[in-house]
Amino acid sequence: MSSTAPDPSDPVTRGEEQILDHAEAVGQLRRLLRADQVVTDAAALASYAHDDAEWAPFELPLAVVLAEHDDDVVAVVRFAAASGIRIVPRGAGTGLSGGANAVARSIVLSLERMTRIVEIDAAERFAVAEAGVINDVLRQAVAEQGLWYPPDPASYRISTIGGNAATNAGGICCVKYGVTRDYVLGLRVVLADGEIVDLGRRTAKGVTGYDLTALMVGSEGTLGIITRVTVKLLPLAGREERAIVGAFGSLVAAGDAVAAISASGIVPSALEILDRTCVEAVDAWQGLGLPHGVDTLLLAKVDEVGALGERHAASVAEFMAGAGALSVEQAVEADEVDRLFMARRLAYPALERLGPVLTEDVCVPRGAVPEMLARIQAAAAEYDVVIANIAHAGDGNLHPLIIAPEGDDAAKARAKLAFDRIVDECSELGGTVTGEHGVGLLKLPGARAELSDRVLGMHSAIKQALDPNGVLNPGKAFPA
Amino acid sequence: MSSTAPDPSDPVTRGEEQILDHAEAVGQLRRLLRADQVVTDAAALASYAHDDAEWAPFELPLAVVLAEHDDDVVAVVRFAAASGIRIVPRGAGTGLSGGANAVARSIVLSLERMTRIVEIDAAERFAVAEAGVINDVLRQAVAEQGLWYPPDPASYRISTIGGNAATNAGGICCVKYGVTRDYVLGLRVVLADGEIVDLGRRTAKGVTGYDLTALMVGSEGTLGIITRVTVKLLPLAGREERAIVGAFGSLVAAGDAVAAISASGIVPSALEILDRTCVEAVDAWQGLGLPHGVDTLLLAKVDEVGALGERHAASVAEFMAGAGALSVEQAVEADEVDRLFMARRLAYPALERLGPVLTEDVCVPRGAVPEMLARIQAAAAEYDVVIANIAHAGDGNLHPLIIAPEGDDAAKARAKLAFDRIVDECSELGGTVTGEHGVGLLKLPGARAELSDRVLGMHSAIKQALDPNGVLNPGKAFPA
Repeated sequence: MSSTAPDPSDPVTRGEEQILDHAEAVGQLRRLLRADQVVTDAAALASYAHDDAEWAPFELPLAVVLAEHDDDVVAVVRFAAASGIRIVPRGAGTGLSGGANAVARSIVLSLERMTRIVEIDAAERFAVAEAGVINDVLRQAVAEQGLWYPPDPASYRISTIGGNAATNAGGICCVKYGVTRDYVLGLRVVLADGEIVDLGRRTAKGVTGYDLTALMVGSEGTLGIITRVTVKLLPLAGREERAIVGAFGSLVAAGDAVAAISASGIVPSALEILDRTCVEAVDAWQGLGLPHGVDTLLLAKVDEVGALGERHAASVAEFMAGAGALSVEQAVEADEVDRLFMARRLAYPALERLGPVLTEDVCVPRGAVPEMLARIQAAAAEYDVVIANIAHAGDGNLHPLIIAPEGDDAAKARAKLAFDRIVDECSELGGTVTGEHGVGLLKLPGARAELSDRVLGMHSAIKQALDPNGVLNPGKAFPA
Repeated sequence: MSSTAPDPSDPVTRGEEQILDHAEAVGQLRRLLRADQVVTDAAALASYAHDDAEWAPFELPLAVVLAEHDDDVVAVVRFAAASGIRIVPRGAGTGLSGGANAVARSIVLSLERMTRIVEIDAAERFAVAEAGVINDVLRQAVAEQGLWYPPDPASYRISTIGGNAATNAGGICCVKYGVTRDYVLGLRVVLADGEIVDLGRRTAKGVTGYDLTALMVGSEGTLGIITRVTVKLLPLAGREERAIVGAFGSLVAAGDAVAAISASGIVPSALEILDRTCVEAVDAWQGLGLPHGVDTLLLAKVDEVGALGERHAASVAEFMAGAGALSVEQAVEADEVDRLFMARRLAYPALERLGPVLTEDVCVPRGAVPEMLARIQAAAAEYDVVIANIAHAGDGNLHPLIIAPEGDDAAKARAKLAFDRIVDECSELGGTVTGEHGVGLLKLPGARAELSDRVLGMHSAIKQALDPNGVLNPGKAFPA
């Protein structure tokens, strides 16, 4: 959408000789791999040029390489390192911050064909999967052995475990069960010169040396390319999901319910808010049959077993009623739980019907969620844009979705201003500019505001130590 | 015990001029801080020269500095960086790998006087504590507000939260609740040139930039000096402890019970094995009144509430009986739970009565625990030393305690050989050389065997990036 102006120093964009360079580079790649692994047709280049953050800048890559083995990744990284070409690694391309957007003179290195589940060890409760394994495929494979992989980003049906690790993806159940980092025991990584290292461990505990695994998780492919992930698993048994959904007449009332639930010591396994704009969009599209006057939905799950689960669900329902909910529904059968959470599932597609969506990802202290939501609505009014809110209320992670009508460039410009304002408001409330989507390109200004110069200097020093020639995904993850 | 030969290049150990250097250094330190914060009497130097790993090499430090504020740490680090003196940071000195052992020409910088609990936020469920706060003091302070800080190293009554973070301490309940790293949200760190940085966050989630917090945790003071820790807390409510203790006629039978419990999907909140040598030492000292023929104790806790907890406890007891336990006791009252776990608490002091103890810390796959214990006993026989075993069986983390009679140097030499053999056996079984104590000095050879040259090179590159002059705890955490 907003491809930046070509870099005049980029040989690919100037004169015949540089185009030859490009052709030569592609020719060499084709000799390193099978021909069908090196894609250069215009449609493919355009579709691999960016992830789901099309609002962020991107360039067309020189080529897209579809790696199938560690050795393919090694070969491409070695070639790139020797040729002054940059590598932009990519899983399914579902990122929302532009971490996988192509940069000038780059190869997009997709790991989507590395789909082997290498090992599931039920006794030791871990699994080893290649980077391109889809989160949900891994989830189902381990479930067959009575195990559970908790991290559940909204994209879990289509995003890869490698991308989840590279961005430290969050999700709905992380309010109780933690994020991707909490489950990554070890990684296989191809370093900037093409050497392979195995980091981390397969044992339950281990403290040998620095935690390079944790350093790689969330580093967005800037320090190494993750080709294989070892994840910790939990027993599948021992959970019974109950859903409790309250419909509120105001955001403030829903916020009161969240505060009461949090203060009670109950840790829900999901606690999501949909604001009026979301609710209206879903209702207009699918008809939710909600009571008159509904402004905000609060969707909770608890997953304790038996009587304790029943008590927790009853308490959550009481807190909702006590905060003035217009209606409260409960469910324990899987189908009914799914039905109650339908509005959450439909919210994003319902909003996309209204126009291109710019997704925010601020995270504030839990108690500041109502105030942050109010400030977001003030920003919407000030900049005359539509902002809908999906919030992981239980951990203070908000996703304001800023919508500009298709083709309305003035609205798009105002949307970007609202985006920046929201980041500023979040900082004022003691928050962080990205709760789970990552810095990528979209949050570089926010990261610069949030991190001190010296902390940014530590980032640069570590990047320099591990990728001295800037081969790996340059310009992402932190402002240089 | 085994102070290394003085380094001939160390000015402090040669001639009059160098002693003046030493005196000058101390004089300058005294001008930077209050006089009583700079300790140089012989007894103090000797007692601060090493942590609980007296088997590892150590030197006498130039001085011990008792920091009281961040600014003290900054002043001492700046002075050291300018003077070519090294800093060895230290909490309570309970480490078991020599991470806080003084090196040549060093200042031991103790944070034990930095004992302020800066903040407890019950609504957001986090606490901020200075590095010198004792784990148990923090634990009790947050409990008063209905919150729980889970990590429980055996030293929790005397070790500091800063030391826990610097070594990524484990503990008994981490089989279910994770280790220190899983609870550290943020850190205040004094870098190698004396600048202060705040890393991490206070929000429930956050992915802005590299996870430098996780990199610092477990880095044993080699990348920065932790002066303040922000920890995540859980609600105190929602747990009911039940203890189940089985007495077994053989290690193999206890191992079978562990395997059955693990396979059931029940995640105990403690699962500890004491072997025959431990049991005999405790019984000889305190009289446990165990049935005849007891060889091994298996001590478990479950902490689910109500009927589910009762069912889990009953199942664990059945698995023990099914594996051939000679007796199985259960308790739910706090006093009774404590009584059943008394043997675990008394094991270490009981063994210390037999002579100096060299503590191992290997971690193997859970299923390899019985085999590893058998190999440890073979090593004991081969090297003619006494080895007792305390094992965190639930996560495969074993603590073979090698005992040499006081003053028997030949036995001590054999103990060191047995130590090395155990490390080798652990590697053969797919384990890691340190589960929770850290590399320090004792595990440097093990770390060299476990980590590839390139991974060690990544360590050196990161150390060089953050501490180019080697001011901070040089020679620890990884083999250079």
